[in-house]
Amino acid sequence: MVAGGALVAGGALVAGGALAGGATIAATRAEGTGERTAGTGTTPVASVGALVEPFHGARQAGVTTEPQAHAAFVALTVRPGTDRAALGRMLRLLSDDAARLTQGQPALADTEAELGLLPARLTVTFGFGPGLYRAAGVDDRRPASVTDLPAFRVDRLQPAWTGGDLLLQICADDAITVAHAQRVLLKDSRPFATVRWVQQGFRRSPGVEPGGHTQRNLFGQLDGTANPRPGAPLDSAVWVPDGPGWLRDSSTLVVRRISMNLETWDLLGRTDRELAVGRRLDTGAPLTGTAEHDEPDFAATDAHGLTVIPDFSHLTRAHVTDDRLKILRRPYNYDGVPTADGDADAGLIFTSYQADIARQFLPIQRRLADRDLLNEWTTPIGSAVFAIPPGCQPGGWVGEQVLG
Amino acid sequence: MVAGGALVAGGALVAGGALAGGATIAATRAEGTGERTAGTGTTPVASVGALVEPFHGARQAGVTTEPQAHAAFVALTVRPGTDRAALGRMLRLLSDDAARLTQGQPALADTEAELGLLPARLTVTFGFGPGLYRAAGVDDRRPASVTDLPAFRVDRLQPAWTGGDLLLQICADDAITVAHAQRVLLKDSRPFATVRWVQQGFRRSPGVEPGGHTQRNLFGQLDGTANPRPGAPLDSAVWVPDGPGWLRDSSTLVVRRISMNLETWDLLGRTDRELAVGRRLDTGAPLTGTAEHDEPDFAATDAHGLTVIPDFSHLTRAHVTDDRLKILRRPYNYDGVPTADGDADAGLIFTSYQADIARQFLPIQRRLADRDLLNEWTTPIGSAVFAIPPGCQPGGWVGEQVLG
Ligand code: HEM
Ligand code: HEM
Repeated sequence: MVAGGALVAGGALVAGGALAGGATIAATRAEGTGERTAGTGTTPVASVGALVEPFHGARQAGVTTEPQAHAAFVALTVRPGTDRAALGRMLRLLSDDAARLTQGQPALADTEAELGLLPARLTVTFGFGPGLYRAAGVDDRRPASVTDLPAFRVDRLQPAWTGGDLLLQICADDAITVAHAQRVLLKDSRPFATVRWVQQGFRRSPGVEPGGHTQRNLFGQLDGTANPRPGAPLDSAVWVPDGPGWLRDSSTLVVRRISMNLETWDLLGRTDRELAVGRRLDTGAPLTGTAEHDEPDFAATDAHGLTVIPDFSHLTRAHVTDDRLKILRRPYNYDGVPTADGDADAGLIFTSYQADIARQFLPIQRRLADRDLLNEWTTPIGSAVFAIPPGCQPGGWVGEQVLG
Repeated sequence: MVAGGALVAGGALVAGGALAGGATIAATRAEGTGERTAGTGTTPVASVGALVEPFHGARQAGVTTEPQAHAAFVALTVRPGTDRAALGRMLRLLSDDAARLTQGQPALADTEAELGLLPARLTVTFGFGPGLYRAAGVDDRRPASVTDLPAFRVDRLQPAWTGGDLLLQICADDAITVAHAQRVLLKDSRPFATVRWVQQGFRRSPGVEPGGHTQRNLFGQLDGTANPRPGAPLDSAVWVPDGPGWLRDSSTLVVRRISMNLETWDLLGRTDRELAVGRRLDTGAPLTGTAEHDEPDFAATDAHGLTVIPDFSHLTRAHVTDDRLKILRRPYNYDGVPTADGDADAGLIFTSYQADIARQFLPIQRRLADRDLLNEWTTPIGSAVFAIPPGCQPGGWVGEQVLG
């Protein structure tokens, strides 16, 4: 259906032939880099649906990919008796679905084929929970840090949002595309697994804020400022550089559902809210600076000798300087149905990608659980950990190095 | 904050000053027409967030407005004791919020002011249910057709999705904008009303399909083809042309939550699915034609003497020729959390706007409930009716002709 594409913006391809009316875009074949891509100001608005992210490559897409507007995180529980061979069949099937849908082609036997034609930068990222390695009898191929997190003082985890053997992270700039991909993947998963939980989240729609711009969460904060910069810093934080085939070019993912108490947050003055994080609400600048990406000065003190950025601010507690110890946050907002009294059910599907959970995520999470002003208004209600196995080449499938 | 705007596409304005980086758009003031607007292929992608729909006017926005990508339908129950004066205060407050937020300005005392700066074509449309007229003691100003619908054979209505005294229909091309507007409006509603139900729905993201293009629902069908054409046909179907101040330029709205059984639908062959509706899945053309907007030929027969478009097809049963008897459908898809077995919780937030429910909606709904092949796979699980009172001018408020 879709044969080629034209390079539009930093690696995102436009699927040829999928444009119904509006702009026509030349169908020159180009290789995607798999790196961060951005819907720039030069992309005509009518072409958003045809933008394609590469599926095949050494590393899975959907991790360092510029975050899309919509996400469904689908956690599955492997059915009893589903062994290594069965899991291999499942991942072959799901990889084939993902390879097609992400390129703007319907899946094999796609019953809603027309919904498969506008990928809108669809990515499908597979995550393997500890239970998948156990079920397959390949626990020796589980990255050591992919294991249940310790309990944190702040946790109020609900089983309904916790754990999972296999994660399907489905992201696209269009909610219909996400719904269709989820449907296809769940139908093909049925013989092998049941649905444990699904979390649906959103960021800004394509074009609402210029590409690469930091998103705002539902507290109104710029969220994502201090992520490692694309290129070498990001790569060294996120990807495992070497090791056996099942480890090299892999990553790990922590998904935390964190409820944000808008009721009490909204009672707080602006100054107190800025002190809780250590950054300004309007510009996102650290309290010691004027622009979003200014380096925070944790030593600066005010007239009373107090640090300008409070010692227990989120910024101070979470801050990391060594790129290899940083994490990549790629959070989505959620907004469920409010209570009868109008209390919001809002929060963050907080996601953290890193080469090693124990080395990178845990120290930060421990410091935050121990002391972080933001804890007053945020509560982790779900938690899960996954390995992100390496990517695959055409003809291959995600997980082949683990299950093959 | 936002002083003016430049006409970009058929009435949608760009809020000046709201563009962070990317394209700069001249801030020439222009009057919006309030008519259907489209995100055309010429709108640069980075400006979607700044597009503005007019709030003030003789008629409310959000009805004949080109459907935005995201919607929240929020139905409220008026608290006991909330009388006409209190409802007036409430609507004054909410109209002020809507007037600001739709133009890219934070609401008064907006605790997340930064989330109010990117309207992304936000509209807030107010609907009055029968209970609101009762509470205010102004039942004589209730449009006669705004009354509980008769029960239909096909109905499986759940109280959780049914009824409501006041509807806030919040639509924008960005989900964060919708969440923020909902939050602001609910906070200001609290003294007067409780939340009865909230339904969140989606269509294609801005730019994914060219403006004016028919959306697809989760059955994969083009949905909206035979809507009355913009201009006189649409106006005569939707708006009350004359009468007292509370009636002229008003409309009515039926919201039906209709679950779509993807499990059984997907078992059906393509031909059977096309026969059920009477249109092709790929092009949306009637079975007697080749292009989406071809006139269906209900008399055409095949070699066996059977009508090509089955007599009990959705198309045949729903078809209306007289523009004044047509309805405007503006449906949103919903996709909830699937069951453990992977069965989808998908469907349509079906909305029908018309000058008169009894004259326009009911005859169609009766024919469909009586006999419609599509009933096999669709089930109404929620239902509510509202008057859409006239719009207001600057300084005025929605509902002033009813409650003032
Ligand atoms: C709902 C919960 C949370 C909210 C609302 C939140 C919000 C923020 C905000 C506004 C910033 C400053 C801007 C930025 O750099 O993105 C920030 C920074 C950061 N957050 Fe969070 N955060 C939350 C949870 C977490 C969690 C659970 C972790 C990790 C365990 C975390 C780790 C970080 C890190 C590493 C930074 C960057 C610090 C730096 O080096 O400057 N956050 N967060
Ligand atoms: C989930 C439920 C429904 C689905 C999936 C559905 C789907 C469709 C489709 C695919 C079409 C053909 C294309 C178009 O003109 O939009 C259509 C037409 C139509 N539908 Fe529905 N529909 C549903 C419920 C309803 C209901 C409840 C009503 C009104 C009571 C209705 C009224 C109409 C009308 C008036 C037309 C245009 C017929 C014509 O004049 O050609 N539909 N619908």
